[in-house]
Amino acid sequence: MSQSIAAHPDRLLPTDPGTRRIARALLERVQDLPILSPHGHVDAAVLEQDTPFPDPAALLVSPDHYVTRLIHASGVPLGRLRASSDAAPGSRSVWREFCAAWPLFEGTASGYWLRHQFETVFGLHHELSAETADATYDAINAKLQEPGFRPRQLFKDFNIEVLATTDDPLDDLASHRAIAQDPTFHGRVLPTFRPDQYLDIAHPRWQANVERLIGAAGDGGTGYAAYLTALENRRRYFLEHGAVSADHGVRTPATLKLDAAEAARLFDRARSGQATAQDRDDFEAHMMYQMARMSVEDGLVMTIHPGSYRNHHEPTFNAYGADTGHDIPFAVNYTEAIRPVLQDFGTAKDFHLVLFTLDETVFSRELAPLAGFYPSVYLGAPWWFLDAPDAMLRFRAAVTETAGFSRSSGFIDDTRAFCSIPARHDTSRRIEAAFLARLVAEHRVSEERAHEIIVDVVDSSPRRVFKL
Amino acid sequence: MSQSIAAHPDRLLPTDPGTRRIARALLERVQDLPILSPHGHVDAAVLEQDTPFPDPAALLVSPDHYVTRLIHASGVPLGRLRASSDAAPGSRSVWREFCAAWPLFEGTASGYWLRHQFETVFGLHHELSAETADATYDAINAKLQEPGFRPRQLFKDFNIEVLATTDDPLDDLASHRAIAQDPTFHGRVLPTFRPDQYLDIAHPRWQANVERLIGAAGDGGTGYAAYLTALENRRRYFLEHGAVSADHGVRTPATLKLDAAEAARLFDRARSGQATAQDRDDFEAHMMYQMARMSVEDGLVMTIHPGSYRNHHEPTFNAYGADTGHDIPFAVNYTEAIRPVLQDFGTAKDFHLVLFTLDETVFSRELAPLAGFYPSVYLGAPWWFLDAPDAMLRFRAAVTETAGFSRSSGFIDDTRAFCSIPARHDTSRRIEAAFLARLVAEHRVSEERAHEIIVDVVDSSPRRVFKL
Amino acid sequence: MSQSIAAHPDRLLPTDPGTRRIARALLERVQDLPILSPHGHVDAAVLEQDTPFPDPAALLVSPDHYVTRLIHASGVPLGRLRASSDAAPGSRSVWREFCAAWPLFEGTASGYWLRHQFETVFGLHHELSAETADATYDAINAKLQEPGFRPRQLFKDFNIEVLATTDDPLDDLASHRAIAQDPTFHGRVLPTFRPDQYLDIAHPRWQANVERLIGAAGDGGTGYAAYLTALENRRRYFLEHGAVSADHGVRTPATLKLDAAEAARLFDRARSGQATAQDRDDFEAHMMYQMARMSVEDGLVMTIHPGSYRNHHEPTFNAYGADTGHDIPFAVNYTEAIRPVLQDFGTAKDFHLVLFTLDETVFSRELAPLAGFYPSVYLGAPWWFLDAPDAMLRFRAAVTETAGFSRSSGFIDDTRAFCSIPARHDTSRRIEAAFLARLVAEHRVSEERAHEIIVDVVDSSPRRVFKL
Repeated sequence: MSQSIAAHPDRLLPTDPGTRRIARALLERVQDLPILSPHGHVDAAVLEQDTPFPDPAALLVSPDHYVTRLIHASGVPLGRLRASSDAAPGSRSVWREFCAAWPLFEGTASGYWLRHQFETVFGLHHELSAETADATYDAINAKLQEPGFRPRQLFKDFNIEVLATTDDPLDDLASHRAIAQDPTFHGRVLPTFRPDQYLDIAHPRWQANVERLIGAAGDGGTGYAAYLTALENRRRYFLEHGAVSADHGVRTPATLKLDAAEAARLFDRARSGQATAQDRDDFEAHMMYQMARMSVEDGLVMTIHPGSYRNHHEPTFNAYGADTGHDIPFAVNYTEAIRPVLQDFGTAKDFHLVLFTLDETVFSRELAPLAGFYPSVYLGAPWWFLDAPDAMLRFRAAVTETAGFSRSSGFIDDTRAFCSIPARHDTSRRIEAAFLARLVAEHRVSEERAHEIIVDVVDSSPRRVFKL
Repeated sequence: MSQSIAAHPDRLLPTDPGTRRIARALLERVQDLPILSPHGHVDAAVLEQDTPFPDPAALLVSPDHYVTRLIHASGVPLGRLRASSDAAPGSRSVWREFCAAWPLFEGTASGYWLRHQFETVFGLHHELSAETADATYDAINAKLQEPGFRPRQLFKDFNIEVLATTDDPLDDLASHRAIAQDPTFHGRVLPTFRPDQYLDIAHPRWQANVERLIGAAGDGGTGYAAYLTALENRRRYFLEHGAVSADHGVRTPATLKLDAAEAARLFDRARSGQATAQDRDDFEAHMMYQMARMSVEDGLVMTIHPGSYRNHHEPTFNAYGADTGHDIPFAVNYTEAIRPVLQDFGTAKDFHLVLFTLDETVFSRELAPLAGFYPSVYLGAPWWFLDAPDAMLRFRAAVTETAGFSRSSGFIDDTRAFCSIPARHDTSRRIEAAFLARLVAEHRVSEERAHEIIVDVVDSSPRRVFKL
Repeated sequence: MSQSIAAHPDRLLPTDPGTRRIARALLERVQDLPILSPHGHVDAAVLEQDTPFPDPAALLVSPDHYVTRLIHASGVPLGRLRASSDAAPGSRSVWREFCAAWPLFEGTASGYWLRHQFETVFGLHHELSAETADATYDAINAKLQEPGFRPRQLFKDFNIEVLATTDDPLDDLASHRAIAQDPTFHGRVLPTFRPDQYLDIAHPRWQANVERLIGAAGDGGTGYAAYLTALENRRRYFLEHGAVSADHGVRTPATLKLDAAEAARLFDRARSGQATAQDRDDFEAHMMYQMARMSVEDGLVMTIHPGSYRNHHEPTFNAYGADTGHDIPFAVNYTEAIRPVLQDFGTAKDFHLVLFTLDETVFSRELAPLAGFYPSVYLGAPWWFLDAPDAMLRFRAAVTETAGFSRSSGFIDDTRAFCSIPARHDTSRRIEAAFLARLVAEHRVSEERAHEIIVDVVDSSPRRVFKL
């Protein structure tokens, strides 16, 4: 059992000693700033009810597709990684699988986050291994029983100031309301409006969702106009409950402005189950245009996450459902796709449009040029597969020379793994320090300015871009 | 007011001390070589007439879309960045906007160029700031009144040997002729044949341009054959006035060989205003083939600059015209697109075809393999958004392992900002030194050879590729 | 004649001294491991018959399109680089051309391999030059006469354990059989099943090949079913002769499952010369599906090499044939293309599918996510134009954070230049050491684990992935 490297103070900093010294000072400047997490997937109810975390496997392995995917690739069926509450040995067995697979995570982003959690959250100072699987299971499990390991205490210990969740448009947001009204809770837990399954007519629940939406939030009508009104009403409801953004997980960044009559025709065709593939594309693109229009009107920041082929392996989807590790990115093109929205709203007052990508090629080619001209456009932080040290450095190198530091969203952890939040933000801050330290060492930015920039990037940018 | 870092002798050199020492020696080898600028957008008349430069804002801010775009992105309408000669406070007000926005440029290529100009051309040894806006305005303005700040003196002080302009095919090139005949002017100012608006039938002025072209330079005929002849005649006129290249700003790199009858049909259809979108694409691609054919015959180097969605934001175009910061790159593919030209002319004697891209992905995938086989093909230097330190390093790393150092065009500043020329070439030379120094430190190239290579890259390559 | 840098012990290692020390130790760990070459183009007969190598030009220049292409780009017609046995001065003249062109190779991957060969295989301790062309020709030529320079002795001296060749499906594999049965030969020389010209109905020899295939290995039938059976039989034959993989050089990674009747219809249409372009695409994609199905059944590892526009310059192809340096990569997309195969076989037991690319953009975007989920999918090593130090480092940086170290194929030299094999593996091992050393220096991987990983990457991975 060798010693963990997670505690090394210089982890992820540049190898050149002179540059590393500069990076250390930059990191120190932001290391204790509060965590701002304007986009993620933690469940608000867990924080409202201060639900104790489950066992180590159910907390750290089974629900995290970043983790299960690589173990699956090594030949372990997903079924062996799902902790079932029925069978007593379930969790421990999953944990053993995970520990045996731990060497697979060397060099991966997930490996860094996990190792950092083990070290700093769970106090394990040695590397995981198959031999010590039971011991580490017991150690983590014991920690999880302690009152200090409840979500609310960790929220405080993690120094989280703002945490945004991702929510269904018809969610009553009761947990968010309860947290907001609780004088003993000092952070902010904000809902995010995520209407994908109400906009994509190919989604299996779209028709049912639209019925429910119009019924719950419409104006009495039943058609396209009522649908738009219902969406506007629910956005308003989210705003009243603290939401700052609306998030869109779309296939492509296509946007399209249709006139109301044409949009209504597509809507009606879709409701009667007669939409074609082209109808689907057009309607989804048009609804992105409508979402932009609503954002201009109500002020919700609009974020777009395109370019993932969801549920690539149908047999796995049929057996285990969505978010099980086989969403695979593909090439996207923003320049033409996003133009209809930018033509009309690109310079609209207070409109904030944060563009994410899983296709790195668009960073220098399209996103930096767009964000470097349009006041509305911000560069979404490297996300998902790109939320990793080297990929983050590539992002900064790709966009900064065109768009500077002022056009980025700030870090987005996008996680459902609550205990990984500090590790992810720590990684991001180290990489920002590493990148800036190089610019200082190359005499491209003065050390004085770099100290201002890193605070801006870590703290001021997300506040400004997400209107926190 | 902190001290500027623009004067640091090691700026942009590698951080590792041993590698930096190698880079310093390489840089010293080329630092005093004359500037060769075979492609750019300076106005020849300014040099002919030695026109005094206007005020600081009209010189450095308003006309430079690299500069105004990022200020615009921060929320300043373009109107506030246009120095108007009518309103007395115009220029000073624009300069204040610029100084207030100066922190936005940290880490950007434009920031490096500007800072270098302020330091070395205008003698400002401190960083710009909003507080000192009026003082720096006055300081620069005072310099601009001095006789030493006239274009001709700066041309000499900048150590420019060759400067190519970009010109309309019907330009009479009077300024170029006057300069060439002026015994007191020692540099070369060369015209470049740029026929985009005479080839792209979708251009609003195409029909009028073609009438003027055939009228001015045709053979008496009125159809497609006369059009080709007129183009050939104007190229000849440019050659007689010192032109070395013809430049093509096309949407895509598509080329197509049509037979004369089909080309004539498209031409006639276009002149009667009946061309379809497909006609447009085919005709433009065919005219690229014709331009290549003419280059083979007359020896003008052919340069292609594709892949930019021009005037992306129509409201801005309507208000302020073209070249106002919203040309946005998109993905291009050269391999199939350029094949018709290379099939027929790829090994033609003395044919030089310089291929540029705003899509970095084609550097290693397509351009280096093409330039590494076809004697006619040269790698255009990183351009526009990619003309920046990190992007240049990525370019070298992407192409050198396949194509070596002999297949590159040499640096292209492509600028309309005359006073930024030394800064841009200085940046390029530093990056070449940085890249080569790494190869030396990694024992991939001997130090002796590296000293030869950097001279070849900075000086011999542009002379050879552009037939200077 | 300056001293060669090929012998420097630190070549290709990181410039930072601390990181270099770590890299040296890692390299030492693997430097003496045997060479495993599971994919390449050496001729088995040469090893069987221990054929003496020809003269320096015929060995090192004329047949190597990596080498001739760059000389061709400099303006030397390919004809001057083809050593003809008819004309006595042929080889020496080619060698002089090569020596004169040697400076072109500075910074290229081919330059590293050649220099390494000259130093370590041929004992030339000084740089090539035009002046010493005859002397180096004579020196190499003399070496080639020595008994120690026969292929079998070099195979041993190079410490090659496994060498796979690439073979026609109807090859009788007599050389492989003879080698396997020769008790004096201690390495393994394995055939590889490469059926491209039997699957691509656009290939000029497809019809004739299919006739021969069905005649030689069919079941008596003449149609599509017999064709499949014949392919299965020949794969079986290859397996019996030691083959571990089937390799596919396809235009795109498209795969498609057709029902048998539809596939038979396309097959029949193609045999009667009536297939359309769409038929061609569909049939080739379907045959990739069939090859995957057969691999699942018979256990041959499936490797796919797509994305090269073969014989881009038709005049050169007409004069000199294929593999003459003008295969040019283009953009590929794996995510959708490979899905039909992965839907059905992505988790099939012991199915190994190694995906290669010449388009670097798919490494982080598609291949790492695919290999990080599907147990069948492995990342093919950087190949062809990407088989170069910086490109290999980009590969590792692009894929490791998503897929770790366990999902890569291990190094593939893919060469027909037998004497370059040690140089290529040496380069790869140095780059693995360089990459891992950085991770150690950044405290991302412990030094202890890095020493295990480099052995896994260099030795265990190819054994595991290629079932050696």
